[in-house]
Amino acid sequence: MFKLRGIYVPIPTPFKDGQIAFDKLESNLEFWLASKLEGIVVMGSNGEFIMLSPEEKQQLIHAVCAQAKGKKPVIVGTGTESTQETIKLNKLATEAGAAAALVLSPNYFKKAMNDRVLKEFYLEVAEASPIPIILYNMPGNSGINLSAKLVAELATHPNIIGIKDSGGNIVQIAEIIHTTPGDFSVFAGSASFLFASLALGAIGGTLALANVFPNECAQVQELVEDGQFAKAKALQLNLIEANNAVTARWGVSGLKAALELIGLYGGEPRKPLLPLGAEDRELLRTIIRQTQESIA
Amino acid sequence: MFKLRGIYVPIPTPFKDGQIAFDKLESNLEFWLASKLEGIVVMGSNGEFIMLSPEEKQQLIHAVCAQAKGKKPVIVGTGTESTQETIKLNKLATEAGAAAALVLSPNYFKKAMNDRVLKEFYLEVAEASPIPIILYNMPGNSGINLSAKLVAELATHPNIIGIKDSGGNIVQIAEIIHTTPGDFSVFAGSASFLFASLALGAIGGTLALANVFPNECAQVQELVEDGQFAKAKALQLNLIEANNAVTARWGVSGLKAALELIGLYGGEPRKPLLPLGAEDRELLRTIIRQTQESIA
Amino acid sequence: MFKLRGIYVPIPTPFKDGQIAFDKLESNLEFWLASKLEGIVVMGSNGEFIMLSPEEKQQLIHAVCAQAKGKKPVIVGTGTESTQETIKLNKLATEAGAAAALVLSPNYFKKAMNDRVLKEFYLEVAEASPIPIILYNMPGNSGINLSAKLVAELATHPNIIGIKDSGGNIVQIAEIIHTTPGDFSVFAGSASFLFASLALGAIGGTLALANVFPNECAQVQELVEDGQFAKAKALQLNLIEANNAVTARWGVSGLKAALELIGLYGGEPRKPLLPLGAEDRELLRTIIRQTQESIA
Amino acid sequence: MFKLRGIYVPIPTPFKDGQIAFDKLESNLEFWLASKLEGIVVMGSNGEFIMLSPEEKQQLIHAVCAQAKGKKPVIVGTGTESTQETIKLNKLATEAGAAAALVLSPNYFKKAMNDRVLKEFYLEVAEASPIPIILYNMPGNSGINLSAKLVAELATHPNIIGIKDSGGNIVQIAEIIHTTPGDFSVFAGSASFLFASLALGAIGGTLALANVFPNECAQVQELVEDGQFAKAKALQLNLIEANNAVTARWGVSGLKAALELIGLYGGEPRKPLLPLGAEDRELLRTIIRQTQESIA
Repeated sequence: MFKLRGIYVPIPTPFKDGQIAFDKLESNLEFWLASKLEGIVVMGSNGEFIMLSPEEKQQLIHAVCAQAKGKKPVIVGTGTESTQETIKLNKLATEAGAAAALVLSPNYFKKAMNDRVLKEFYLEVAEASPIPIILYNMPGNSGINLSAKLVAELATHPNIIGIKDSGGNIVQIAEIIHTTPGDFSVFAGSASFLFASLALGAIGGTLALANVFPNECAQVQELVEDGQFAKAKALQLNLIEANNAVTARWGVSGLKAALELIGLYGGEPRKPLLPLGAEDRELLRTIIRQTQESIA
Repeated sequence: MFKLRGIYVPIPTPFKDGQIAFDKLESNLEFWLASKLEGIVVMGSNGEFIMLSPEEKQQLIHAVCAQAKGKKPVIVGTGTESTQETIKLNKLATEAGAAAALVLSPNYFKKAMNDRVLKEFYLEVAEASPIPIILYNMPGNSGINLSAKLVAELATHPNIIGIKDSGGNIVQIAEIIHTTPGDFSVFAGSASFLFASLALGAIGGTLALANVFPNECAQVQELVEDGQFAKAKALQLNLIEANNAVTARWGVSGLKAALELIGLYGGEPRKPLLPLGAEDRELLRTIIRQTQESIA
Repeated sequence: MFKLRGIYVPIPTPFKDGQIAFDKLESNLEFWLASKLEGIVVMGSNGEFIMLSPEEKQQLIHAVCAQAKGKKPVIVGTGTESTQETIKLNKLATEAGAAAALVLSPNYFKKAMNDRVLKEFYLEVAEASPIPIILYNMPGNSGINLSAKLVAELATHPNIIGIKDSGGNIVQIAEIIHTTPGDFSVFAGSASFLFASLALGAIGGTLALANVFPNECAQVQELVEDGQFAKAKALQLNLIEANNAVTARWGVSGLKAALELIGLYGGEPRKPLLPLGAEDRELLRTIIRQTQESIA
Repeated sequence: MFKLRGIYVPIPTPFKDGQIAFDKLESNLEFWLASKLEGIVVMGSNGEFIMLSPEEKQQLIHAVCAQAKGKKPVIVGTGTESTQETIKLNKLATEAGAAAALVLSPNYFKKAMNDRVLKEFYLEVAEASPIPIILYNMPGNSGINLSAKLVAELATHPNIIGIKDSGGNIVQIAEIIHTTPGDFSVFAGSASFLFASLALGAIGGTLALANVFPNECAQVQELVEDGQFAKAKALQLNLIEANNAVTARWGVSGLKAALELIGLYGGEPRKPLLPLGAEDRELLRTIIRQTQESIA
């Protein structure tokens, strides 16, 4: 059975003239597949999955799984607002060869998403999915938090193998680690709290920053596993500002601009998201360069 | 040109065995088309639009527009996370004969949805839409608020004819009324603050409660326009608890259960939403009956 | 028994060289006592009560009650974090001749302030207070909301005669009006939602704006009681921007600067609050002048 | 100069018949003074400082400083809503022999507490204080967050020697550590994120839980400093539930009940806070016992 661990990169979806640019996707992927990263996440938040049509989703899943085959495991984001639609995507991901599905909670009907509804949703999806599923807690975008209590209950299902927690509440992450079975994998959802999560028992992460600094992100985990906490801490502190630039501060637009700064294809985000302006691009360039120098 | 005014009903989408039940839709619609309501909204939040496939959306729009033709105007909810997708839906709604499009703001990337991004989104959609568009402010579900300042700017575009404000911030609603042109229509987004909004100058509403109490909702506006404020106020106060039952408290599930109580087809919401349990159904029955008695 | 109704002015506390300027207080009070306002509130939020020493509170209460005697009723803000301290202040206010006490909920221990704790607090205070008490809901400052359900329970106590609701949630205000006895007085806590509250059945307000526009605030209520809703609405809309300037936007500092613009004594707020800068003062001057013109 | 480091205990204020029970304070203090803890905090949030009169504050400060003299340093909580009042308390604490002052930000006028106002407040207090001051970030109670940017600016003042951050945002804590001078001390404000904070470079904490498990809290830091991260992590995870019981879940009431379970004096909190009921007391007993067993 697939064991979730290590640092995964949630890749952006490259667009050109409003369409997915599959050639750019391929060249970008070569870079990440050649890195020290453990695996690939396609159709995470940074993949702008929320703006893709059903046909685009299918094509994207197949393209990424085909290229990564034999090199690194692929996790597919399959969360939607509808239980049956998510189940359909899970089957599609399975057929394409994905290792697991990352399932964001439905969230539009916020008041209705109580623990009972969320529990039934995840259990039904887990039962129907041929591949294991990973809970995806992303309160900053979804407005919904998966509580430690709910996660502990869901973690007992054999087909729910872990959680990506992007909320950054370190006490909640500690509680989840403490109250779930030993083989349930807890992943940090952002590089800014990777070291703290690993120190408490997380065994990996899915990090936007891994698109830009793949080996450095992987190194944080290596250092922790090697007992070199002082070095891990120093590396962590040096990555926070660059992480902020490609997440909270500028989001997907910042991430795509950063890719261009390291020689990959970035391109424009899909509208309504707007590309970074010239001034912000210069600020970003400075942040990336300073980060490179501080970790050299 | 279409003038937005009066009370509209945002109809739920009836499902049977997981599929849209078009026969039930038709019989339900007959009821609302025969009421004192001004018009129909299809694919609003209560229409579970967020869970419909592109094909279902197309079929639903056509079915409702065809049946309402010559009877009442139809407004179609066309908000999605992607500018191009919303523009596509607007064209589809136009072809089907819709009077206007109700456009929820994109909202998944909450931190990115600043006023500049929202403004460009709405202007591009307004430019491209053959039918006029209506802003849809729904912070309870979207986590995004359209500020009075942004609305005042957008209101100057000739193809943006109004706003449905479901936030319920009465000061913001007053500010919008005060700072937008006289022909810009402000709609209350919930029956609970309908009277207060009308008193301040709103000229209609799109109200979940209008599914259950269509004529009473229409009557609130008639009374205000007739200067009978004491009666309007009394009716308003008597509607609040029933409104709460089919919105904040039980949401779509409560609304569908309430339809059954008045002889329409309710059916189950689409998963992950769960139908009301037996106990809640009894509570709801009591609330509906007490409301009927209080307004008799 | 004292009946709470009409428009009250929550007066600021004038300071000079860091001390309460009782001579300025006296001259300011003359202005408000000569206005159409119903009464005076001393030691409300705008009175910077939170920064006054026990001795200053005592002196202030006595000075205001003595001057207002025989002219207008005085309500004293007596909320503190401690039940016994609030009870002490209520006795002090009684001795000074106050008509009622306005009691803000304790709020520092936010998580502990559940309905049970708040209910016991208010009941114990009401039992011990010689003068009637008024609930004070001020979530913007306190971070605590008094729910409609809690207010309805407290409203049955004979010594709890009303509520000042500064939260501005118009549905909650409507619920409170609907579920409390007929002799329980509901007051709007800000001029921005005064008209909407009155239309729904509130019978007065305690309004920062009444410091600057006392007669116009009183006129909103006169117009509503006289059935002139269109005029009341127009006046309400014209007051919103000036109200925002002396509340949300610039707070106590804006209110004190506004007093100087109409010929009263403003002076500096007590630190850490800072007086308005020159640029903001000019903006405020423009807003006040435009408001005066619009309501002329 | 006083160097802030190690684990401090923020002691509750014991009451009997509504008054401070100085004899109980003395016997409790003996226990903490004999422990491995570094020092004492009096008049922190758990000290119910918000409910104490000026006279009680003075007596309390003197009593604690006198007893601790020569044994452990004492830090005094001196935050109030007023700059001049806080300065006065700082002088009083100095005279009593306190090592430093812990200064909560003013917070009632939430909208007014922008970075400019907070910065001027802290700088004025720091200038006027004979003893060094420690910033106190407590958003859960105050509703105000001291941003990493503001803290970095304040940290350059020679009389501002550290921060107690009770917010628990581990990324903000990391940013503060990364952007403040090396001699600026960062303290965790709760035992639940103590280990993560220490791992990132914090050098101590002020922890409610240290009242009940003083030596275990001290041990977390010893283990981290000794490079025994696995043991520190395990101890941390075992302390979270007990910590929750005496903070978020039951607050001061839970803390006082827990003191009685370990043989100290607890007593009732001051009203409006209510003592724990019998059922909650049993739950607490179980949690404390299980924690004792898990860390044995």
